[in-house]
Amino acid sequence: MAGSAARGNRRGRPGYDLGRLLDVSVRVFNERGYEGTSMEVLAQRLGITKSAIYYHVSGKDELLRLSVNRALDALFAVLEEEASTTGRAIDRLEHVVRRSIEVLVAELPFVTLLLRVRGNTRVERQALARRREFDLMVSDLVKQAEAEGSIRPDVDPSLTTRLLFGMVNSIIEWYKPSRGLRAEQVADAVTKIAFDGLRTGSPDPS
Amino acid sequence: MAGSAARGNRRGRPGYDLGRLLDVSVRVFNERGYEGTSMEVLAQRLGITKSAIYYHVSGKDELLRLSVNRALDALFAVLEEEASTTGRAIDRLEHVVRRSIEVLVAELPFVTLLLRVRGNTRVERQALARRREFDLMVSDLVKQAEAEGSIRPDVDPSLTTRLLFGMVNSIIEWYKPSRGLRAEQVADAVTKIAFDGLRTGSPDPS
Repeated sequence: MAGSAARGNRRGRPGYDLGRLLDVSVRVFNERGYEGTSMEVLAQRLGITKSAIYYHVSGKDELLRLSVNRALDALFAVLEEEASTTGRAIDRLEHVVRRSIEVLVAELPFVTLLLRVRGNTRVERQALARRREFDLMVSDLVKQAEAEGSIRPDVDPSLTTRLLFGMVNSIIEWYKPSRGLRAEQVADAVTKIAFDGLRTGSPDPS
Repeated sequence: MAGSAARGNRRGRPGYDLGRLLDVSVRVFNERGYEGTSMEVLAQRLGITKSAIYYHVSGKDELLRLSVNRALDALFAVLEEEASTTGRAIDRLEHVVRRSIEVLVAELPFVTLLLRVRGNTRVERQALARRREFDLMVSDLVKQAEAEGSIRPDVDPSLTTRLLFGMVNSIIEWYKPSRGLRAEQVADAVTKIAFDGLRTGSPDPS
């Protein structure tokens, strides 16, 4: 739509680096759904031409890949942290849960997009495969915690992982950064509920 | 598309009562999104004409209203049960959580549709208002449990309700009736995690 003057210099384009392009694209994908967002719509929302988008990425697919990988890379980085790899399994598990919540809050639009991926394209299936890999690594931590006797032995590791991260992931449904609730407070609440339980007094681990 | 012979007798139409119409419509809504489903598509999937659908309902909006209300009515009925209204608040809360999971599994497509409603139409906003009402009643139970000293006092009731039902509602993301996991087993796992906690030994309620 804009003329060549508006498109300006193709190299060193002012205002739109890849990071900002992703920020806006992810917001539009979350609003309209990835399937429901055309390159035309993206260009309109960005206020640039489609060819200006193609300067940065090969297409919508690459925008999705870069976006979900930003969320996935941040989550996998948590698993590499020292507190996730040394010490008792129960403490490593708690660390992974806490830090995942911090990642979720820090990268809210990217994690939201990741959690809505349903596997309709190759990029989406790759994202689902990485999510499963993450779940397996967490599930393995639950198993280790059971083996060391620090977690109740009567819960299934993969069901526990699903429910634990179901609680963590549900945060995207209601968390609003503007309301002043900090990631740390949410992480405190989740770990209190899931690790120590709501009930006062001794739990019955039988 | 079908001729008048295929449409058959308008009264006492065989095969499609309202219940079956809802079952199929909800499945299509969940697959394609409510917005993305036209009456044409519904008629095609049902193998009947649009006018045969209008024999039962005034339109797509009423299909949505009847469907989300089926889920909401079942959830509100849980709050009326004797075990939800008598006894200690902690036990009433646990009963509500367990029974909500049973409703979720029994009415999986209907609850799934309900949980995806975003408030774009009047029917959707009414559904969201009823969900908030349900959450407030659960949140009140958490407050009562704190007041009676049976729940740890250092968790915020509305945050706790959100996280607890975040875990419960996440079940729709992965639960497959065909895999043989019973609602009761899922409810056991959720209540073990959230009420007694994963950690063995005494929790520190300070």
